[in-house]
Amino acid sequence: MTFHKVAIIGLGLLGGSTGLAVQAYLPGVATTGWDADDATRVRAAERGLVGQVFDDPAAAVAGADLVILCVPVGAMSAAAAAIAPGLADGVIVSDVGSSKQTVAKALADALPGVAVIPAHPVAGTERSGPDAGFASLFQKRWCIITPPEGADQAKVAALSAFWEALGARVEVMTAQHHDMVLAVTSHLPHLIAYTIVGTADDLEGVTQSEVIKYSAGGFRDFTRIAASDPTMWRDVFLSNKDAVLEMLQRFTEDLTALQRSIRLGDGDALYRHFARTRAIRRSIIEEGQDDARPDFGRSDHSG
Amino acid sequence: MTFHKVAIIGLGLLGGSTGLAVQAYLPGVATTGWDADDATRVRAAERGLVGQVFDDPAAAVAGADLVILCVPVGAMSAAAAAIAPGLADGVIVSDVGSSKQTVAKALADALPGVAVIPAHPVAGTERSGPDAGFASLFQKRWCIITPPEGADQAKVAALSAFWEALGARVEVMTAQHHDMVLAVTSHLPHLIAYTIVGTADDLEGVTQSEVIKYSAGGFRDFTRIAASDPTMWRDVFLSNKDAVLEMLQRFTEDLTALQRSIRLGDGDALYRHFARTRAIRRSIIEEGQDDARPDFGRSDHSG
Repeated sequence: MTFHKVAIIGLGLLGGSTGLAVQAYLPGVATTGWDADDATRVRAAERGLVGQVFDDPAAAVAGADLVILCVPVGAMSAAAAAIAPGLADGVIVSDVGSSKQTVAKALADALPGVAVIPAHPVAGTERSGPDAGFASLFQKRWCIITPPEGADQAKVAALSAFWEALGARVEVMTAQHHDMVLAVTSHLPHLIAYTIVGTADDLEGVTQSEVIKYSAGGFRDFTRIAASDPTMWRDVFLSNKDAVLEMLQRFTEDLTALQRSIRLGDGDALYRHFARTRAIRRSIIEEGQDDARPDFGRSDHSG
Repeated sequence: MTFHKVAIIGLGLLGGSTGLAVQAYLPGVATTGWDADDATRVRAAERGLVGQVFDDPAAAVAGADLVILCVPVGAMSAAAAAIAPGLADGVIVSDVGSSKQTVAKALADALPGVAVIPAHPVAGTERSGPDAGFASLFQKRWCIITPPEGADQAKVAALSAFWEALGARVEVMTAQHHDMVLAVTSHLPHLIAYTIVGTADDLEGVTQSEVIKYSAGGFRDFTRIAASDPTMWRDVFLSNKDAVLEMLQRFTEDLTALQRSIRLGDGDALYRHFARTRAIRRSIIEEGQDDARPDFGRSDHSG
C-alpha cells in the first residue's frame, strides 16, 4: 500500500517540512495543502511547500489517501471537522502533534468511521510559520506512531513506510506511553526553559543587558527552545497535563535535594550527581541525536 | 604596562585555551605553566599549551609579571599557597574562576601584599582537561574583571588590555554584582540542566534508551552543559551559595506559578508567559552571543 496524494493541513514548520520532504523524497506523490491563516496560504504557495494550496480545507483533502494534520494540538478537533466533508473512502488521517492521547480522542470523536492513526515525528527547530520548514527536518529523527487498538496493520505499515521514506526512523507505541516519554524528553525541558528565561527577565538587580551579555555562561542554551511557538506549547501543556505534572513533581523533588546539598555545603553529594550525567550526553551523540562537536559546534573553532 | 611573561596555573580547558591564545595573539609574550596532575602536565607539554611546563608551581611563576590561576575555585587557595614562594615583585595574580567573592578572599588571604585582580572570562565548552582548550575560545566573549577596592588602576588597565588582546570584551564590576549576575546566566542554568538529566535517568517508566532516542524534542539541549566538569561545578555552587540559592528560590516560584496554570488549565497565562521569552533570544543573537541559525546550526540543513 503506497500513497498517491498526501494532503497537509496546517503549513507551518512541521507541515511545510512534510510537504517539502514528500516532494524531495517521494517525487511521484502529489501534495496538497491548506492553512487557516490567509497570509500563510499565500506564503506556502510562494515557497511551494505543497504542489497545490487550497482555500477550502475540504477541497484540499479531496482524493487524498493520506491526510496529515499539522496544526497545534488544541486546533486538531476543529481542523478534523473542517476536512471531514472532503475525505475520500479508505483515507488514513494522521497528524504530527506532540501529545497523543488527547489528539487521538479528538480525531476519533470528530471523524467517526475514519482510519485515524496518530503519529509524532520528534523533530523541529525553534522557528515557526511557513518560512521555517525544510525538507531534511526528519532525517535521522524518530517518528513515533501510536495506532489505536484494532488499527488496520496494513495502514500502520504504510504510514511507517511513509515516514521512513522522509528519512525518519519509526517506533510504534501506545499513546499513553508516548505521552509519558515525551513529557520528560520534550515537554518538561520546554517548560523549564520558558521558566528560567522568564525568571532572568524579571530580576530587578540584574539588567536585561547583563543577562544577554553573559549568556554564554549557559543561559543562552535555554533561550533556544524558549523561543518556540507559544500557541503550540500552550496546547501541549494543556493536552498532556497529567504526565507533565507528574514529571514536574519529580524534577522539583530532585532540584530540592540539590538545593539542600548546596545549603548544607555537601560537596560529595553534588559531585556524585554531576559525575553521572555525562554518560547520557555521550549516548545521545553516539545515537546520532546531537552534534558531537563541543558547544554544539556553534562556532566550530575547536581546531 | 605590558606583560613579558605569563604563567598559567592549571592547564585544563581554560588554562590551556589561555596559553594557546597568548601564543596566538601575543606572540612576543613568554608563557609558562603548571598543573597539579602529572598526566595533564605531560599532555600540556605535548600540545604546547604553554611555552614551558614546569613540575614545580613556584618555578613556573618565577619571573612572570602576570600569573593566572585556572583551577577549580575550591582549589584556588592551595594553588595560591603553592606559587607564593616563586612570585616576582610587582606581579599581578589573576584567575578565571566562575565565582568571585570567595575567590577574591581566598587569594587575598593566601597572598598578602600581592596585587590580586580576579577576573572571569565568560567562555567555555562542556569539555575539560588538557585536550579541551583552543586559542579562539575567548573571541567575542565577555571577560569580567572584579578589582578589589583600592586596586592599582594601571594594573586593572593592563589586565583589561591582556584579555582584549585575546579577543574578549572587558567589563569591570564588583565581585558581589558578578556573583549575582552569573548566578542567573550560568550557575542556575547548570544546576537545572544537571537536575533534569538526573531526573530523566531515574525514571522507572521510561527507559534510558527512550530518553536518548527522543532527546531531539528538547532534552538534548540540557545534556550539553550537564556534561561539564563535575569538580568545577561542585566548587561553583559551594562558593556562590547565597546568590545561587536566591536565584533558585525565584526560579522555583516562577515554575510553581506555571505549574498552577497547567493544573488549572489557564491557557491565557501560559500563552502570555511563552510569548515574552522570544525577545531575549533575539537580543542574544544580535549581541553575537549565539548562533543565529535555527537549532544552533547543528546540522545546517535549513537551506
